Amino acid sequence: MPYPEEAEGFQVDGPNSFTEFHKRHFKLKPFGDYDVDVKIEACGICGSDVHTISGGWGAQKFPLCVGHEIVGRAIRVGPKVTLIKEGERVGVGAQSYSCGKCKQCRNDNETYCQVEPMDTYGSKWADSGIVSQGGYSSHVRTHEHWVFPIPDALETNAVAPMLCAGLTAYSPLVRNGAGPGKKVGIVGLGGIGHFGIMFAKALGAETWAISRSRAKEADALKLGADGYIATAEAGWEKEHLCSFDLIINCANSSEGFDLARYLSMMDVHGRWISVGLPEEEGQVIKAQNLISNGVLIGASHLGSRREMLEMLQLAADKGLKGWVEEIAISEAGLKEAMLRMKKGDVHYRFTLTGYEKIFG
Amino acid sequence: MPYPEEAEGFQVDGPNSFTEFHKRHFKLKPFGDYDVDVKIEACGICGSDVHTISGGWGAQKFPLCVGHEIVGRAIRVGPKVTLIKEGERVGVGAQSYSCGKCKQCRNDNETYCQVEPMDTYGSKWADSGIVSQGGYSSHVRTHEHWVFPIPDALETNAVAPMLCAGLTAYSPLVRNGAGPGKKVGIVGLGGIGHFGIMFAKALGAETWAISRSRAKEADALKLGADGYIATAEAGWEKEHLCSFDLIINCANSSEGFDLARYLSMMDVHGRWISVGLPEEEGQVIKAQNLISNGVLIGASHLGSRREMLEMLQLAADKGLKGWVEEIAISEAGLKEAMLRMKKGDVHYRFTLTGYEKIFG
Repeated sequence: MPYPEEAEGFQVDGPNSFTEFHKRHFKLKPFGDYDVDVKIEACGICGSDVHTISGGWGAQKFPLCVGHEIVGRAIRVGPKVTLIKEGERVGVGAQSYSCGKCKQCRNDNETYCQVEPMDTYGSKWADSGIVSQGGYSSHVRTHEHWVFPIPDALETNAVAPMLCAGLTAYSPLVRNGAGPGKKVGIVGLGGIGHFGIMFAKALGAETWAISRSRAKEADALKLGADGYIATAEAGWEKEHLCSFDLIINCANSSEGFDLARYLSMMDVHGRWISVGLPEEEGQVIKAQNLISNGVLIGASHLGSRREMLEMLQLAADKGLKGWVEEIAISEAGLKEAMLRMKKGDVHYRFTLTGYEKIFG
Repeated sequence: MPYPEEAEGFQVDGPNSFTEFHKRHFKLKPFGDYDVDVKIEACGICGSDVHTISGGWGAQKFPLCVGHEIVGRAIRVGPKVTLIKEGERVGVGAQSYSCGKCKQCRNDNETYCQVEPMDTYGSKWADSGIVSQGGYSSHVRTHEHWVFPIPDALETNAVAPMLCAGLTAYSPLVRNGAGPGKKVGIVGLGGIGHFGIMFAKALGAETWAISRSRAKEADALKLGADGYIATAEAGWEKEHLCSFDLIINCANSSEGFDLARYLSMMDVHGRWISVGLPEEEGQVIKAQNLISNGVLIGASHLGSRREMLEMLQLAADKGLKGWVEEIAISEAGLKEAMLRMKKGDVHYRFTLTGYEKIFG
């Protein structure tokens, strides 16, 4: 198989035409000693893709090919690569590089590297100035640390969304003690939230799904939830005052959100961790809301390589898989997916398939 | 010595006349089996006293005698009291009761009891409906759990403010890991903050004072600070990016506070804990501000009996004392103190003295 000099993928030209995808060739970064070329076979569609290309998160580097829930085959590994074997099935997530040397990188906090963090799409490679392009494309090339072997037990299309959404849910669960004897809530039953329920339960926590209506209750229970709270119902928080050790907030909007009621459900020094990045201006937090139970509020960003490998193994061991709708990659398929994502009309993640047919 | 049926103290009638104190007699709660009567010898003046009587924290039960940094003598102990001996010098802080049975009370979190929490002033005793009155008075009566023996090494007037301000600073320090190898910041060099510096250093942490100007730098260093940050200076946060394990925010206002700059100084998963209760509406917090280093934001309320005893022992062992200005208790003295508190004109705490002269 010849090594690629370029990749081919679907780019968007700007927020005003974010549903118009254009199939183009673009340059990959120069191949480095630690790099791996991945021939892509599937890619999940993440909320971040939509926020990015529709302008919700502000200015971006267009034209841009998004996608950071990538599964494919390692078709070439650099001479110094030790973590990945040529021919292996691998994944690539939302981050593609960090300095590797700073305090954060040395402590499994590479996702918080402040020196040279790189997103899988829309960041500039230091070696060439080339803007990274994501997985709605034929190939990605990146440093081995950011390429993850996929256990055989996991099916390509179902595992793809774990590479970002899954890890985003898994990391704050394990970093904040989700496990036996702990009561954990998952707010927002979307792409990230459905993994949150699955993993909280797999880790042994008493797991509660927290959603607006009861529409997703059956799904939540099937995903593993022990209980369900519908916040459209009167007095929904009353039975749970001061009882949750951890709530992962996966809602991607903070509008109309009565945070104080949610926080009243937290046990003393419980933790409320947000993983969504709403497009709104933020929430007013009063010390008064935090003081009655000493709750801690935080946010979490992706997860480490170590956590990614642990999560994939946990999924393999317990037979967990993302609930995905498959869409064949094409201009029309991507347009439809974006429009449905904007409406929240997906249960619970899209995976783009049919790469062989489009890219050869 | 005859047992008191009533106490005598200085009450305020409402927020519109919060500097006018009236010396009056008022009823103590019925004496219970676990109660201790304390004849007061000194009382610190807390910011809470001023917020409460000037209406900053909303409606209160007037007329009210405030004061919750009480030191005095245990002159009577109930038949079931085991923690306090008659004649002992003791302190009483800002809380005077909790249920003693709930999960929080059983886990050294009695300060977060949701069942029957009682403030030392302004709360209703369940046994009688009597509204608790504070330490600008001759006596208090409360459950032994909320009465603390004072080690001999500590001087009455200097230890008084430790009963609230000191504990408020100490508890979040120990609960959030302040100690050797940790970098701890104290924002706001007032009554609580000056204890924060003293205790952070005594616990072995690298301790930084964070204040607006350099006006308090010499004091901060004398209190034990290893370094000083003046936020009126350009680029004040730049040398400290991603380095603090813990910052205790003791500022009692959030106006004009650029939280994102403070948070940029936090190490990954560092903790920003507020202990002030500003009168303003709160701060807008964006998940974006929290996500770059996964910082946790929280608030802390007082501390447990166990922590109070530990703190007093630490102070005795290390020769720590509050920096106090003494003011003789009287209508005029209290008025002056309130006016100066409103202006923040105190270094760093007032202690009311001369109780014997006024109350006999």
